[in-house]
Order: sequence, then structure tokens, then C-alpha cells
Amino acid sequence: MMNSSFRTIVFDGEKLQLIDQTKLPAELCYLVVNDEQDAFQAIRSMKVRGAPAIGMTAAYGLYLGLRKHAHKDHEVFYKELYVQSVYLKSARPTAVNLAWAVDRMVAVAQRHPNDLVATTLERLKSEAESIQDEDERACRAMGVHLLEFIKEDMGILTHCNTGALATSQYGTALAGFYVAHEEGITIHVYADETRPVLQGARLTAWELQRAGIDVTLICDNMAATVMAQGKIQAVMVGADRIAANGDTANKIGTHQVAILAKHFHIPFYVVAPWSTIDPKTQSGLDIPIEERSAQEVIEWGGIQTAPKDIHVYNPAFDVTPHELITAIVTEKGTYHPPFKFL
Amino acid sequence: MMNSSFRTIVFDGEKLQLIDQTKLPAELCYLVVNDEQDAFQAIRSMKVRGAPAIGMTAAYGLYLGLRKHAHKDHEVFYKELYVQSVYLKSARPTAVNLAWAVDRMVAVAQRHPNDLVATTLERLKSEAESIQDEDERACRAMGVHLLEFIKEDMGILTHCNTGALATSQYGTALAGFYVAHEEGITIHVYADETRPVLQGARLTAWELQRAGIDVTLICDNMAATVMAQGKIQAVMVGADRIAANGDTANKIGTHQVAILAKHFHIPFYVVAPWSTIDPKTQSGLDIPIEERSAQEVIEWGGIQTAPKDIHVYNPAFDVTPHELITAIVTEKGTYHPPFKFL
Repeated sequence: MMNSSFRTIVFDGEKLQLIDQTKLPAELCYLVVNDEQDAFQAIRSMKVRGAPAIGMTAAYGLYLGLRKHAHKDHEVFYKELYVQSVYLKSARPTAVNLAWAVDRMVAVAQRHPNDLVATTLERLKSEAESIQDEDERACRAMGVHLLEFIKEDMGILTHCNTGALATSQYGTALAGFYVAHEEGITIHVYADETRPVLQGARLTAWELQRAGIDVTLICDNMAATVMAQGKIQAVMVGADRIAANGDTANKIGTHQVAILAKHFHIPFYVVAPWSTIDPKTQSGLDIPIEERSAQEVIEWGGIQTAPKDIHVYNPAFDVTPHELITAIVTEKGTYHPPFKFL
Repeated sequence: MMNSSFRTIVFDGEKLQLIDQTKLPAELCYLVVNDEQDAFQAIRSMKVRGAPAIGMTAAYGLYLGLRKHAHKDHEVFYKELYVQSVYLKSARPTAVNLAWAVDRMVAVAQRHPNDLVATTLERLKSEAESIQDEDERACRAMGVHLLEFIKEDMGILTHCNTGALATSQYGTALAGFYVAHEEGITIHVYADETRPVLQGARLTAWELQRAGIDVTLICDNMAATVMAQGKIQAVMVGADRIAANGDTANKIGTHQVAILAKHFHIPFYVVAPWSTIDPKTQSGLDIPIEERSAQEVIEWGGIQTAPKDIHVYNPAFDVTPHELITAIVTEKGTYHPPFKFL
């Protein structure tokens, strides 16, 4: 177990509590999720974010939402299961873990169609807990696999937040940092601040600093400079969806970091749980990219940073073509090009 | 004369007024510069920014500062001239126009060592006004030269602000946009917001929108995405100093835009007045890069966006190697690689 002083997602069997990540780094506070609507809002508003954390939140949210229908008859309950699952999956379109987790919950119910509603509810609760337990083990395994690529005194650039805040524990790309730290390996992390929502500045910087890992915050447009100065020996990022050919959707800005890494001959690693690989998506062209509101770009904390009615393009994700990826690390191991996930 | 409704730098023969660019886009207001200390503070605090605008402010500031010593004897006046010139040049180290403008003022005095102090003051005033007049003509000439590279319906990416706000009128890279607009050529500008000070969001978006030019604001980390989508046919940026070999210092983030442009086979143009070329600087390695405070990165308008004591690296400029530059456009014409400025 990682020695961290916070848990992003806490389920006590009755209610779900999530760190409100929009309040970090100023405040560490939890919000309570009582049903599927609370879960949907927490995901949509990015109070919880990070593909694995979103999946877990949706799984627990589905259980909590259905608990309200425990007294309904079998048919009504199942109808509610389908309605809520579609609703939850619509909260954010790009990350596949959201759909994966919800589908896994639905499949549990479908595998036991003759169960009493109360029994199905117990199975759903148990399945959500399994998703969280498996995520924690998977993250730890990714961290161990990443040790192959992490050497003493290395500079590693990361983008967005793929740490303990994005998962149950450890994170995906950041799992390597935590496991290296546990092993006594010194690394120097450069964290892109990750506009517009600043997950790098608010979350990655916060959690790495808290863990005692050397971290330097830079603006997204400084990545080439630190690479040109020889400060970076590897880039490690997460993923929201990996297509069958290895094309990877991740937080906006990832694609250009991959281009810069190629330019400077720096290896570029994608780190994500196996559930992020979507065999139904042939290539990056097939991944829906969520566009978010202009407000995220033109104001901060109510302070206007651009003309109010300016036209803004604000895609939340981009797709890094597989040619730019050195390796993809999952809990099952490391995959090299040409990517074949079997 | 460009049909714009603002002037960045207004000198009425007695006092200098500057748009306070830290207040844009929320407010358009002017600050008054009475002497060299006011000029230094305006430059250091980035109330005025943009290499040409900084140079003009320093030239006027030197004249205004010396006016206080009009009654002093010749020797004291000249000593003051040297002290103030060194002081003003220290306000920001990277842009060469600052030193160029101040040195030009000093040279005027030195060319006429036997003049009365009152006459020298008149010469200095006239020289500062000449610098501004020449800048305006140079910017317009750059805009005309840029028409060679601007076609109907083109998408053009720019970084930071190199517009009317950075110069006396028209701008450098943005001069091409304004002249194209005057000629009835439709262009689609994508403006990088340019962290951490957001000159793209606050200034470029503001002045292009005001001029009726189609402009879309993006975060710095979205440049690769709009390029990958085929929305960009050219990149045009300014410069703070161009070394003898063509290496170009400009606002942080420029280097990586140049790498992205190369990756996507998009031409990358640097646009700057001839005074930006520094023959004494052999290559980019010799250009001093100003580092600014962590505060610029970790808070906005007093709102904390990162852990307070986080380590931050905040270089204000970077150097784009000459190999990544398609052409350098000055008022004297367009220079292609290998760059030789004679």
C-alpha cells in the first residue's frame, strides 16, 4: 500500500465520497455522491476526473442510483438499470473507462437474470468494489513495469494528472514515479500545468510535492525549452482511450508533447490500465473528442482573461498517433510497436 | 494610416502616455510616464511590452528623465545621460530593441558634444519621435512584404502579441493580418493564449477582434491539434532578438510552435524590424533569457492555481533555432536561409 495521506474515492458500503478536485490545491475537501445524478454531475463538472476515477465513480453511482429502486419489481428495476447506465455513460464521451465500468456493471446483472432485485444490488455493489480493488492493483503493477524505463536522476516530463487523484491509488503514469520513489530512486519530474483546467498545476504538482517527489511546474509552452536544455530523458503520460492500432486519446496537449519528444529523440510512454484499450475503436479517427465551453479558456475564478465574446476552440482531448509512441504500459505488461493487444 | 481606434504610445511633446496592457482586455486605460523611472517600471512590470514598444518607451523615458536635468551643466547632464541609459537598458534583458533604442539616443548626444544642454534635449526629443515614426513605417512595410505569403481563406497561427499593441501601429507579425484585411483578403487567425501572461488571449484576441479580423483563441497546448486538423497554412510570430545566424529569441512557446510547424510541413515566418537583428550576437546561445517570478505561473488575479511553494521554472523567452525558420521578414525585405543580414 502506498504511503499517501489521501484517497480520491472512498466507499464505505453506504455512501461514496470523492475529493472535489476543482477545489485543489487550495482546499482538500470531499463531496458526497448519493445517487447516479450526483455521480453524473461530479463527472461532468470535473470534480472527479481521470479516466479510471471516472469509471469507478460511475460504477458506484450506478449502484447507489439503483438502490433507490430496491423495492421495485424486477422489470422496472432492469429498465432503470439501462436508463441510468446510458445516462452515466453520456457524462463524458472520450474516456473509454467510463463506458467500460458501466458496461461491466450491467453485464453482472445480465449474467444473473433470475436473481432477486436485492441480490442483484448486492452483486452490483460487489462489482463496483472489485473495479476499485482491481484498479489499485493494476496501478501498482504499471508502476512496477515502468521501473524498466526509470533510472536514477532522470528528468521525466508528464502532462495533465494521471496520479493517485486520477485513480484509486498510485495513478497510471505517476505510478512509476511513486514506485521509483519507494525504491529510493531519485527522479526530477517536470509537470506541464495543462491548460485550461490546470490539472498539472493544481493536481500533479500537489500530489507529487505531498509525496516528497522533486517536481517543477512549467507552462505547457515551456516543454520544448526544458527538452532542448537536456533536462528530460523520458515523457510519461496517461490515456483516456487507446484504439486498436495504438492511437491514443489523452488530455489536450499530449499530441504536441509527443511531437516534441520525437524531435528531441526522447522516449514517449503511454501508461494506462488494460480497460483503456478499446478494440472496437480501429484508430484515433474513430474516437469522439469532447469539446468544452469557452468559459474554461476565457476566465479563471471569475476573472476575465480574454475578450468576453471571443471565439474559442476548446477540445478537451487530442489523439496522439501511434507512430509517436515508444511503448504502451498496462498492468499486463509493456507493448512495443507495432501495437497488437491480444 | 491604419484605421485603428487606439494608439499604444502617445507622446504630445510634453508627456508620454501608454496603454496599460496589464489591464486589457477588461479596461482600456492609459498610464502617464513622466521620467525614466516611470518608463523603467512600466517596462519591468509589463504594462508596456513588445520589443518595439519597449524600445520607444525607453527612448521617450530617457528624454523625459533628462529634461529634469535641463538646468544642470554639460558634464553633469552627460553623466546623467549615461546613468539613465544603463538603468533603462537593464529593465528587460532579452529584447535587443530596448538597448538599440537607448543606444541610438545616446549616440545622438555624442555626435554633437559641443551643443548646449537645451539643444541636446531637443535633439533627444526629436530622435525619440523619429524612432516612433520609423517604427510605424517599418511595421507597415513588413505587412506589405507579408502579403507574399498570405492567401485568401488561409489559416494562420500566431503566438503572443506582435500587433499594434506591441509597436507604434500595425505590429510586426500582425501587420500582415492588418494589411491583408485592408486589401479585402479574408484570413482565419488562431491565437495561442500564451501562458503565463496571456498576451495572446488578452491582447492579440482583443486587437484583432476590434479590427474585425476572424480570430479564434486556443490554449498553447492546442496548436498541434489545429495543425493536425489542417486548419493552419502558416505560422507568423515576432522576435525579441535575432542572432547573426538567424536564431530567434521570442516569447516562450515560440520554439515549440516552430517544431510543430516543421512536423506538419507548415511554413514558419519570423517578422521583426531590422533593429531586432543583433549582429553582435553570433547565435541563440549568446542571448540572455529573462526568467520571471513563479507568481506569474502559480496565481491569476490573486487566485492560487498551484501549491504555493511549488518549484516553478518560468523563462520569459525561448530561442528558435534558425533551421526551423522558413523566412525572416523585416521592413527591408524577406530573408531566406541561410540567413545573412548585410
